Amino acid sequence: MTLAAVLDRIDSDLPHATERLFELMRIPSISTDPDHAGDCARAAEHVAAELRALGIEAETRITPGHPMVVGHGGSGDRHLLFYGHYDVQPVDPLELWDRDPFDPALEQTPAGTVIRGRGAADDKGQLMTFIEACRAWVAVHGSLPCRITFFLEGEEESGSPSLVPFMEENREELSADVALICDTGMFSEGTPAITTMLRGLVGEEVTITGPSKDLHSGQFGGPAMNPIRVLAGVVAGLHDAAGRVTVPGFYDGVPEMPEDILEQWEALNFDAGDFLGKVGLSHPAGEAGRTPLEQLWARPTCEVNGIWGGYTGKGFKTVLPAKAHAKISFRLVGDQDPAAVRENFRQMVRDKMPPDCTASFHEHGAAPASQMEISDPAFAAARAALSDEWPNPAAYVGGGGSIPIAGYFKTVLNMDSMLIGFGRDDDQIHSPNEKYDMESFHRGTRSWARILDALR
Amino acid sequence: MTLAAVLDRIDSDLPHATERLFELMRIPSISTDPDHAGDCARAAEHVAAELRALGIEAETRITPGHPMVVGHGGSGDRHLLFYGHYDVQPVDPLELWDRDPFDPALEQTPAGTVIRGRGAADDKGQLMTFIEACRAWVAVHGSLPCRITFFLEGEEESGSPSLVPFMEENREELSADVALICDTGMFSEGTPAITTMLRGLVGEEVTITGPSKDLHSGQFGGPAMNPIRVLAGVVAGLHDAAGRVTVPGFYDGVPEMPEDILEQWEALNFDAGDFLGKVGLSHPAGEAGRTPLEQLWARPTCEVNGIWGGYTGKGFKTVLPAKAHAKISFRLVGDQDPAAVRENFRQMVRDKMPPDCTASFHEHGAAPASQMEISDPAFAAARAALSDEWPNPAAYVGGGGSIPIAGYFKTVLNMDSMLIGFGRDDDQIHSPNEKYDMESFHRGTRSWARILDALR
Repeated sequence: MTLAAVLDRIDSDLPHATERLFELMRIPSISTDPDHAGDCARAAEHVAAELRALGIEAETRITPGHPMVVGHGGSGDRHLLFYGHYDVQPVDPLELWDRDPFDPALEQTPAGTVIRGRGAADDKGQLMTFIEACRAWVAVHGSLPCRITFFLEGEEESGSPSLVPFMEENREELSADVALICDTGMFSEGTPAITTMLRGLVGEEVTITGPSKDLHSGQFGGPAMNPIRVLAGVVAGLHDAAGRVTVPGFYDGVPEMPEDILEQWEALNFDAGDFLGKVGLSHPAGEAGRTPLEQLWARPTCEVNGIWGGYTGKGFKTVLPAKAHAKISFRLVGDQDPAAVRENFRQMVRDKMPPDCTASFHEHGAAPASQMEISDPAFAAARAALSDEWPNPAAYVGGGGSIPIAGYFKTVLNMDSMLIGFGRDDDQIHSPNEKYDMESFHRGTRSWARILDALR
Repeated sequence: MTLAAVLDRIDSDLPHATERLFELMRIPSISTDPDHAGDCARAAEHVAAELRALGIEAETRITPGHPMVVGHGGSGDRHLLFYGHYDVQPVDPLELWDRDPFDPALEQTPAGTVIRGRGAADDKGQLMTFIEACRAWVAVHGSLPCRITFFLEGEEESGSPSLVPFMEENREELSADVALICDTGMFSEGTPAITTMLRGLVGEEVTITGPSKDLHSGQFGGPAMNPIRVLAGVVAGLHDAAGRVTVPGFYDGVPEMPEDILEQWEALNFDAGDFLGKVGLSHPAGEAGRTPLEQLWARPTCEVNGIWGGYTGKGFKTVLPAKAHAKISFRLVGDQDPAAVRENFRQMVRDKMPPDCTASFHEHGAAPASQMEISDPAFAAARAALSDEWPNPAAYVGGGGSIPIAGYFKTVLNMDSMLIGFGRDDDQIHSPNEKYDMESFHRGTRSWARILDALR
């Protein structure tokens, strides 16, 4: 009975909830821009005050960067930790926005009502679905349904430099049974999702050096080795004809997905043609013999994210450059060891160097893949709760990208995460005209109320 | 007697000649950069004024690009045309220069005094050796030693788009008995050279397009084809394991060098170890089974002069880019057909495109290889004059670079060219810290005075 009353309360309070979200969105908490440090602090205070209004002991905590918001409320056997972030991406290019990014508004679109503005989806709207669910629960029931620790950061869009040190310093305070992370999306229209696996990431920058300085290709072309040619050979050799990555030992620790998971993914009727077609592609380019969803969620990849060398300006310059560079990333799955991938890649590159060429490397971060223990009954309970709210049953899905916080919760706090969110592919996060569907905000709030009921 | 007085005049006037060269070098006439169009016009006016000061009827001529400078002076049976260029290469990366590239200065080095700055060797210093030789002749003798047409362009470093149309429109005015081109180098310390064969050039820019916009490599990596990977495959496939270029039909029209020429080259005792060692290399990287001099002078090549795509700034960005680009040049010899090389290259690239990727091309100039008629007695006379000035006899050599003007003089004006210059291998033309040896400037000026005396 309690749940029904909470859901009713959410429905009737929606206009006020929307206005509260707008208040938070009006604070331009761009974490990467030092000019907005004051706004980040203001957003942190604002969110902490929202939590205190629900009877939660919440405060902002100083870090070397932007403040953390930490709050504790409720009681009971189950202890949940809720994570979100109050900071947002920069808004440039401003001229591509149809309105002031920090003056949020509702807009009627052919697909329904949307909340328009920076942070609507990433992550203020998603964060507020959880807070509004708590608010309704408190309004109806007088208290939170279970013991909840709130942990909100303001550096997610700028590399989270303070996150791990803060977690390590406050390990005991932040440890809970399971974490809830509200920074992901729906699988598709009408189908909510729990992201249960995320790919890890290894970032590398390689520089090939040939001649000791830039040469004229007329004066030296022929006898002198060109490092761009060598780098191209390295890059071209990273995949075999079947699309597999050729780094020795790369597939160590890559699991085959269980049949039941593959069957569940098959049942999702993922429209690869539509997914690729939206970005001008038609042909899944990953490993042969794998479905597009496997390629995206369950298979490791190697991508060149940047390449440069020689003259790249207007016109033409017949230079034979001294150096050529590439930024290369590996997406990892299962138990692939980031350190081993990095070292095996480096050794493979070194082994390919012809006479007179050397390779040097610069590290750009590493994180292992995350795989949640979905045998924990909490996952099934949350999935059932989500399925009750939405037209279609909830799916366990993978995520092609990396959400480092999930990895940190595992490695630093030994805690699994439930990644649940209501974003859509067309939310334009990190881009002009970001939006969040009103349906995501409304049903998202109701979803959290149901999940809290199921998990209490 | 006249010659000795002219040489004395050159010796005594050297400080002023150096300052006049500095004045020209201070004008940043970077022809490939539209922002420097005004500087190119200024350099043209400056050179025209220098010629007028010698009693030469000289003026700048408008073209669709940068101006030409054309001047006529002197009289006599022999009609020489002198060609040079007043434009220079870009200066990036600026941070690798030890001084402002457009604030020239003399520097004392262990190898002697050098003139440091952009254009010192290519081609302002070389151009001024000829003008200073004329100046000394006029100062001593009251007039030029023979009839000379001056033809100076400002687009040599940017593909010379206006050159051939201008030559065709002014065919009669520009026709002479033989052309003198001052854009080449010494064979070695103490050994001047007349370049009698030059490689041609085809410049191409290729763009590979995959997705319709830049993607996030987490959201799309795997299923989406990365155009950098495709471009790397193209570049890596341009050479086979023996260093030969793989473009179909590429070696059509490539001659084997006659035995007597190979023997003369052998006698030059070219020190490949030293040549490569100066630029940090040790291993001739061209076609297997060819000497380094053959690789440089008599064999065609393919070089990647620039490559870029994705994120190339500081840090890391997990972008999967929509496009990747390369600037690629071919050096041609013998009767290789530039148009056929270009088309065969393009077709080869198109044939390599995987699904969803397209290749587009942009042309950056073309010129066939040049081979002079060294049986003309003027060649022997110039060679003897050069041999008088320098410690060692002058050599007939090949040139690895392309000097398209020599080909145009032949094809448009039916005129052979004598390519004589005093650059050194370590002049760092097209690179940071370009220099010209004071000995080259001084003896180069004296060499032209001797050659004019021999050819009048």
